[in-house]
Amino acid sequence: MENSRQNTRTHERKKIAQQVFVLRWGHRPQRDVRLTTHVALTARALGASGFILSDVIDHKIKDTIVKVSQNWGGEFLFEMGTPWKHAVNDWKINGGAVVHLTAYGENIQTSNVLQRIHELKKNVLVVVGSQKVPKDFFSKDISDFNVSIGNQPHSECAALAIFLDRFFEGEELASVFEEARIRIIPQERGKKTDVEDRFNVEA
Amino acid sequence: MENSRQNTRTHERKKIAQQVFVLRWGHRPQRDVRLTTHVALTARALGASGFILSDVIDHKIKDTIVKVSQNWGGEFLFEMGTPWKHAVNDWKINGGAVVHLTAYGENIQTSNVLQRIHELKKNVLVVVGSQKVPKDFFSKDISDFNVSIGNQPHSECAALAIFLDRFFEGEELASVFEEARIRIIPQERGKKTDVEDRFNVEA
Repeated sequence: MENSRQNTRTHERKKIAQQVFVLRWGHRPQRDVRLTTHVALTARALGASGFILSDVIDHKIKDTIVKVSQNWGGEFLFEMGTPWKHAVNDWKINGGAVVHLTAYGENIQTSNVLQRIHELKKNVLVVVGSQKVPKDFFSKDISDFNVSIGNQPHSECAALAIFLDRFFEGEELASVFEEARIRIIPQERGKKTDVEDRFNVEA
Repeated sequence: MENSRQNTRTHERKKIAQQVFVLRWGHRPQRDVRLTTHVALTARALGASGFILSDVIDHKIKDTIVKVSQNWGGEFLFEMGTPWKHAVNDWKINGGAVVHLTAYGENIQTSNVLQRIHELKKNVLVVVGSQKVPKDFFSKDISDFNVSIGNQPHSECAALAIFLDRFFEGEELASVFEEARIRIIPQERGKKTDVEDRFNVEA
């Protein structure tokens, strides 16, 4: 299972060969459904290869992400219910690094933490909390890096977005998502989409 | 009122002198409270000078933002209930530019749209929708620029975060928020805050 995670084929990328998965900790099915959906969609759109909703099952979120992936293309692995400690340990056993996003960590702008993450050349599991996270998350047993996106309180969705944008050096926003049913044709004004089958060369 | 918006003193910034306000359109008080709170906190933490919750009143959000600003410092203007068209027109009358964030717009990575926004040297009102936005938003009467943060569906919170991070060229994450009651001391492991009065030289 974990091998398959780290071998997922991802969108073509020019500079950064490291793959990223996102683990969302502390999701509460009723209360957090929209926010966690945004976090998962952000992971997908910003170049992550997969998303682990740890410890809980929430079919509402899975259904949304699967549907978006079917319509908008690309490969994106969605997994849920895995205990967070298992997911983290498996990731490490398979040679990956763990990055915990927290307002208390090393500032991505003022430190060299991103450079150190890149230099490791390992695939990266980005752990994002929601409520107060267990103290363990900060320990060497769990996180290889504690990274802050500024040291102000804001949003795990915003933090993840900026981390991914900087990690992939912006390239992720130019990715082509293969086998899409819908594609947006970007333009200065109005909305233009292409929904032709011709995206799908094998369809 | 609008003059005061565009003259708000903001955090010291080295490169980019343009000020940014964020206008959130389409907020639904029950359903969107957490997401809109995240959008407003993102605006504040990522260098915007103020936030306009258009068309509706939601004291829950205002209370959160005011409390965060009191504790974590900085100046951040919060305004709500203003009809969006008034806010946009007033912004333009006062010499500002309007940037509409939409998945359909010019891709911030593959186009030169950000450069063109900077070259205008105007203060910027960033308009973020939530539900389906009025067609007007794409017209010249409203938006000077329609900007996409990638052309995949994701999250207005993520889109705003990346827009601001790129707009301010990362400097915003190193900003010092004046007159804070709490400050985080970033570090590799664990949580460290400073809550001394000595931040507040005039206190």
